[in-house]
Amino acid sequence: MNRVELVCVGTELLLSRVNTNVHLVSNYLNRAGLTLSRNTTVGDVQEEIAACVREALHRSSLVIVCGGLGPTFDDVTREAVAELLNRKLIFDPEVWEAIREYFQRRKVNPPESVKKQACIIEGSQVLPNHRGTAPGLLIPVNPGGKTLILLPGPPVELEGILEESVLPHLKKAFPSPEKRCFRFTVAGLPESVVEERSSSLFSRYEKEMAEFTILTGPGVIELLVQVFEGKKEVARKIEEELKTIFGEAFLGLESPSLPELVGNLLLERRWTLTVAESCTGGMVGSKITDVPGSSAYFKGSIVAYSNQLKRRLLKVPPTLLRKFGAVSEQVAIAMAKGARKVGKSDVSLSLTGVAGPGGASPEKPVGLVWMAVAFPDNRCLARQFLFGGNRLQVRERAVFSGLDFLRREIIGWRPKEKRGRK
Amino acid sequence: MNRVELVCVGTELLLSRVNTNVHLVSNYLNRAGLTLSRNTTVGDVQEEIAACVREALHRSSLVIVCGGLGPTFDDVTREAVAELLNRKLIFDPEVWEAIREYFQRRKVNPPESVKKQACIIEGSQVLPNHRGTAPGLLIPVNPGGKTLILLPGPPVELEGILEESVLPHLKKAFPSPEKRCFRFTVAGLPESVVEERSSSLFSRYEKEMAEFTILTGPGVIELLVQVFEGKKEVARKIEEELKTIFGEAFLGLESPSLPELVGNLLLERRWTLTVAESCTGGMVGSKITDVPGSSAYFKGSIVAYSNQLKRRLLKVPPTLLRKFGAVSEQVAIAMAKGARKVGKSDVSLSLTGVAGPGGASPEKPVGLVWMAVAFPDNRCLARQFLFGGNRLQVRERAVFSGLDFLRREIIGWRPKEKRGRK
Repeated sequence: MNRVELVCVGTELLLSRVNTNVHLVSNYLNRAGLTLSRNTTVGDVQEEIAACVREALHRSSLVIVCGGLGPTFDDVTREAVAELLNRKLIFDPEVWEAIREYFQRRKVNPPESVKKQACIIEGSQVLPNHRGTAPGLLIPVNPGGKTLILLPGPPVELEGILEESVLPHLKKAFPSPEKRCFRFTVAGLPESVVEERSSSLFSRYEKEMAEFTILTGPGVIELLVQVFEGKKEVARKIEEELKTIFGEAFLGLESPSLPELVGNLLLERRWTLTVAESCTGGMVGSKITDVPGSSAYFKGSIVAYSNQLKRRLLKVPPTLLRKFGAVSEQVAIAMAKGARKVGKSDVSLSLTGVAGPGGASPEKPVGLVWMAVAFPDNRCLARQFLFGGNRLQVRERAVFSGLDFLRREIIGWRPKEKRGRK
Repeated sequence: MNRVELVCVGTELLLSRVNTNVHLVSNYLNRAGLTLSRNTTVGDVQEEIAACVREALHRSSLVIVCGGLGPTFDDVTREAVAELLNRKLIFDPEVWEAIREYFQRRKVNPPESVKKQACIIEGSQVLPNHRGTAPGLLIPVNPGGKTLILLPGPPVELEGILEESVLPHLKKAFPSPEKRCFRFTVAGLPESVVEERSSSLFSRYEKEMAEFTILTGPGVIELLVQVFEGKKEVARKIEEELKTIFGEAFLGLESPSLPELVGNLLLERRWTLTVAESCTGGMVGSKITDVPGSSAYFKGSIVAYSNQLKRRLLKVPPTLLRKFGAVSEQVAIAMAKGARKVGKSDVSLSLTGVAGPGGASPEKPVGLVWMAVAFPDNRCLARQFLFGGNRLQVRERAVFSGLDFLRREIIGWRPKEKRGRK
């Protein structure tokens, strides 16, 4: 069995990059038919790094180390590994030339400290880094026929080297993968419901699957199905059954993110979108504009956090605000219609709710969110949601439920005779 | 030395929670004078979990395990640890009663599967969970006098038990901490500059400090200083010197986040804020409204992604857009003034830039962002930024630089005679 482990180095990794890097490495391994068994994260302490790598090499045939290849005093991965393997660090003129060119393109002279990034471990293969200075290193470790790969920590650089060098190497080194991984995505349902509805399906296929995992991603649930090589038709049968079980909630295989899905639907219909937000404070607009090219369909978002802006910019009638309050079906509808009009867009989405911890009442508890979608014929559909959790969780859930609500309504929309739904 | 390790369990941890949980545990350990030496993340595989815990107990005197205490089939931490320690799992009526009450408060009957969460490991102390169902377990491991603590994975529940039970236990178990940790924060400067400017200071104090680390947080740089117990005056001297070195960029000890700092400044002055965003698509509004109670000073954000909305909502003159383009000093100023006016607020912040990958030109490269702040006397100050990185990084850096720009301008603002700066 080809066991693979990851070691992440650097105290700062504890804060922000670990997620991204583990996810990136895990994805690329999956694409080569491999699975990550363990990730270990350590600070920039030479003995600790050496211990982690030694232990991981003992357990696994492939060990990837991320981070600690930078130029500053606390970057010691190169030194730790060289000492562990009892190999020399050798200055490599070709690597140094690539680093100098990298700086020259930016019209800066390379500082002296960068020179240590041109030192490579004896007997290693250089994996070029086109997005930064420190190259990756691929090191065959014998006896045992194991492989150690050192990669830089910044996610952009890591991804570049994974795509250009590591993935081709893995495909060559492991030409007949044991398993293949399929990622199916479901939106708009809680994890427990997804598990319940899919459990009988997966117990029927238990013998043909290598592994089955349910992952909670941002706003979507991922069903990770690993099948043994040569059993691809099993994955196809599972896909068909999932389609039947989940209907509109099933987003498919390797599907794009919710904001991308909404964007694609809008592009297909040549529709434009305006958003009106209150409790989400701009998070919906932020998610939509995460997608490059979203300016083709996104007009903007009016974050009307105060009632004054709801009146002034979205033309919500003051009587509605007084009579029903800002968190109500009536105000959600008025916000959606106002956003559609001011943005001169085909559709609009509005969200207004109680994110907490303050602002709740017995009738309007923390987690209550009203949303509305306005359509090209000015029909409008509102829906109530009640989310659990703290302020952050309520807001995040509102954003993804809002995007999924919009997605489903766009799919389901049919031009109708004048009567309309509301 | 009291070595501490963390083991995070659950495949989903690879995706979203690891960061939060490692950060939480690390913070609470720091508060008890302890430091996290290593974090290991594994999937829900019983043998793998047992191996990680066994190895960690071998190396460290305190091992904390997060996750895998849920009710579903793939939650196996309890079983893995019981088998490893060769102890029984015992049904605990008191724990079961607490779980039943938890469900009753939500007017739901506990499903049968939850019963396994009432099983505790022989010889362990129950750490009550007031925010969920699975309690934490504190297990003395002998011989060796080591301690194993099992905690649930959902961050909200984890934090509750860390605060209520784990921190008091650690303070009692390790009454004379070896070190104390101080976190100083600096905003608006790149990590390399912070390192350069502070390096001589820290080399002078090298002998009195146990450890010194620079962490890159969201929009701020944290300087983590650990001093040996009884050397608190060293931390105070370092704080004074940092204040001199960094001036306005120094946010201080255990400082609130940038959005909180901006909110506090606005509250002190009884000012309100409106934002006008383009390339950040709502991220600024989103960050500001992360802070509970922000409705006291935040009117809203006009996310004018299209030029049409810049004209309609922010009253940016079409001639400016034609002559200088949307990403320009002139348009940033017009956006800020328009936002201040439409929001009837005291101050406003505007951001307009090229986030990429499309939309760039030789004069306006990816990463160029113009920002402006408009003041109570309608004076307006614009500033140009050039950020490196991909779309995500440019947008994130713009958000935090924008908040820091606003923070500094609010601090520096003095009412002036009519001339004004612009």
